Amino acid sequence: MVSPLKVGIAGLGTVGASVLRLIQQERAALETRCGRRIDVVAFSAKEIRDARLDVSKLRRVADPVALAGDAEIEVFVELMGGAGDPAKAAVTAALAVGKSVVTANKALLAGDGLALAALAEKNSVALNFEAAVAGAIPIVRTLREGLAGSSFSRVYGILNGTCNYILTRMEQEKLSFADCLKDAQRLGYAEADPSFDIDGHDTAQKLSILASLAFGTKVNQDAVYVEGISSIAREDLEAADELGYRVKLLGVAVRTDTGIEQRVHPTMVPKESSIAQVMGVTNAVALDTVGFPPLTLVGPGAGGAATASAVVGDIADIARGLRTPPFGRPSAKLATSGRAPMQRHEGGYYIRLLAVDQPGTFATIAGSLAKEKISLESIVQKHRGARPHGGDDPKSPDAPAPVILITYATTEDAVRRALKSIEKQGVIAARPQVIRIEKN
Amino acid sequence: MVSPLKVGIAGLGTVGASVLRLIQQERAALETRCGRRIDVVAFSAKEIRDARLDVSKLRRVADPVALAGDAEIEVFVELMGGAGDPAKAAVTAALAVGKSVVTANKALLAGDGLALAALAEKNSVALNFEAAVAGAIPIVRTLREGLAGSSFSRVYGILNGTCNYILTRMEQEKLSFADCLKDAQRLGYAEADPSFDIDGHDTAQKLSILASLAFGTKVNQDAVYVEGISSIAREDLEAADELGYRVKLLGVAVRTDTGIEQRVHPTMVPKESSIAQVMGVTNAVALDTVGFPPLTLVGPGAGGAATASAVVGDIADIARGLRTPPFGRPSAKLATSGRAPMQRHEGGYYIRLLAVDQPGTFATIAGSLAKEKISLESIVQKHRGARPHGGDDPKSPDAPAPVILITYATTEDAVRRALKSIEKQGVIAARPQVIRIEKN
Repeated sequence: MVSPLKVGIAGLGTVGASVLRLIQQERAALETRCGRRIDVVAFSAKEIRDARLDVSKLRRVADPVALAGDAEIEVFVELMGGAGDPAKAAVTAALAVGKSVVTANKALLAGDGLALAALAEKNSVALNFEAAVAGAIPIVRTLREGLAGSSFSRVYGILNGTCNYILTRMEQEKLSFADCLKDAQRLGYAEADPSFDIDGHDTAQKLSILASLAFGTKVNQDAVYVEGISSIAREDLEAADELGYRVKLLGVAVRTDTGIEQRVHPTMVPKESSIAQVMGVTNAVALDTVGFPPLTLVGPGAGGAATASAVVGDIADIARGLRTPPFGRPSAKLATSGRAPMQRHEGGYYIRLLAVDQPGTFATIAGSLAKEKISLESIVQKHRGARPHGGDDPKSPDAPAPVILITYATTEDAVRRALKSIEKQGVIAARPQVIRIEKN
Repeated sequence: MVSPLKVGIAGLGTVGASVLRLIQQERAALETRCGRRIDVVAFSAKEIRDARLDVSKLRRVADPVALAGDAEIEVFVELMGGAGDPAKAAVTAALAVGKSVVTANKALLAGDGLALAALAEKNSVALNFEAAVAGAIPIVRTLREGLAGSSFSRVYGILNGTCNYILTRMEQEKLSFADCLKDAQRLGYAEADPSFDIDGHDTAQKLSILASLAFGTKVNQDAVYVEGISSIAREDLEAADELGYRVKLLGVAVRTDTGIEQRVHPTMVPKESSIAQVMGVTNAVALDTVGFPPLTLVGPGAGGAATASAVVGDIADIARGLRTPPFGRPSAKLATSGRAPMQRHEGGYYIRLLAVDQPGTFATIAGSLAKEKISLESIVQKHRGARPHGGDDPKSPDAPAPVILITYATTEDAVRRALKSIEKQGVIAARPQVIRIEKN
């Protein structure tokens, strides 16, 4: 008879409570599956909001860092969140004394993942974090273990449910960004301060973890180019729809000639692509593997039960004695990943301009693009006075008219230069909108 | 320095050759990831079709069963296929002498998986088979490890690329089943004898493996109810389209009050569901987990490179010392799964009838359904003489007219009795077409 695996949990918020409940409910099944009982024996928590949670047999430890070093536990489960202390101090303390760690803390991993992985490896313990990226979607273990023999050309996905919820409602109900955000906050899908989500930083942290796993590079959130979704207008979603695209906030890590390009920005994706089908708070990750068609994994990216499922899967791995280097390769062998310069990004672009009504405007625009060798796949110009995308404001005959351009593959640099030249020549009435296109 | 993991491969067809090539190409990356070199040292093969394959440093063993027991190898990779010998004898021989086995052989596992798992457990070796179900899609490890703490209510998927290719082309190009099959054979997507695929047996074998992993039951292919796609007509796909559905050959395993229901049949799925988006030879598996929204995994289900990726992932697990019971739980603890009687299946139904042109026909049909307490969600009857679904034969005014019915949830039994009664009363001119509906 193998002795039970003794676990301490720091943090009994939504996820922590779900983890404790899942381990209690599935006790017998987990023992069968792991060949060993999993017992949560201690916890730390600022408060226990869920009054029905059974903590009667658990020892409460006031300080999470003390819990991390507690002599009785073998696994420390960190569910407090946050890049700094106490999470960082507690995880470091646990690894330092040779305890395995399971965490859902993307911010901690994006910032200090490399040092923590090295510490885990030095002490031959596990540092598992399936729940840190895309909730219940088994992307960490797929990259770390399942596709260990394959190399990847690109990994990308919808990694933030709040943004996808807002973009989905904007598209389906023809609402403005501001109205959708307000609604998302009311419904609890967005935080009171939504900037971490909508400005793309949450996606960037998750992407940096995926990029490390996929490409064997040192996790580096500073290498990610980040743009959020607050500039996306209803008109963009309507134009995308007409042209066969949807707009999603994607995190994309791609192998290029100059290194691993990591970027987060609103992205036009072809409507028929798998990623375009992903609606609402759902997450998805797509993997382009060298040699065969892409894999796409779709599922809940957040929520107590979904996140808890990933956390318990990670604990079960430890119970069964499974242990791999946290980022799939020994941390000493991970390559340094610089920030691939965004100016060199190559791809198609959606450009929305508000052209002033004067002779030669379009010739000026076309000339500026041609000078940068930018070719156009589509041009949509509604006649003046029309309400081009169902907008509420009837335009007077002399009002500026929207022009939508879709370019063939070009470089970010060329697009920026062309738009600067167009702006300088006074033929547009507002700042151009630019959205990158990602082909599947 | 850990000694290399020595591997013997039986079978150098498309998959075997891809596995050998992948291990040779990714030698350095695999060593970094696994902390141990992986060396293929011996093989057996009836023939080596790929002349460029480098087998110069490999020992050739004539008999695969001898290779399985070869003193030099630690892992036996079985890629010959087939339920019987030599695959069965060779895998048994390898496990019996304490060698780990990796196989892509669904037929062997669906038939003898339980006994082989017990043998592997007895000798403390691995029996890995990610590639046996849905190619590169990491569904086996997701069920076995990633979601070890969760329980499932349903697992279902598109597990046969040939059938999905045929149904996709029938739908998109309005072709007949026979024409599509011929084309699929010409293009190499269907075998010369396609019955194993199109009659649903391939899907059934894969489903029985998934059901065992998801529900902790003994793998039992005889417990699967099987219907193939050869009865699907163009009219069905067109009617499905009009009603907001697509037709897919699904394998479905679902927990019911009377046990685990396992079934393979053409299925109407709502067009907006994830599974309905899966086109061509692509495979997909969806998991309904208790407590959170479904997970869907989409990707290549066959092909040398995709299958090889899964095989090499399984070998890498062994190199790292990972080992779990083959079906996720010790085989002695797997429950017996009987064949859930299909008559008790509950769900919605699509029924296509060819109604004869005489007064009272519809009243007879409606009456027979009402007697079985079957309620209708939709009724579509095109006026006589019309060509209801673009068929080639213009109907004379007196020709029988197709009637399409979509029922609310009812039982298989009730539908069968109602249709028998309708047939008996002579109001339909052909055997009714029945397709089960699966809601997401």
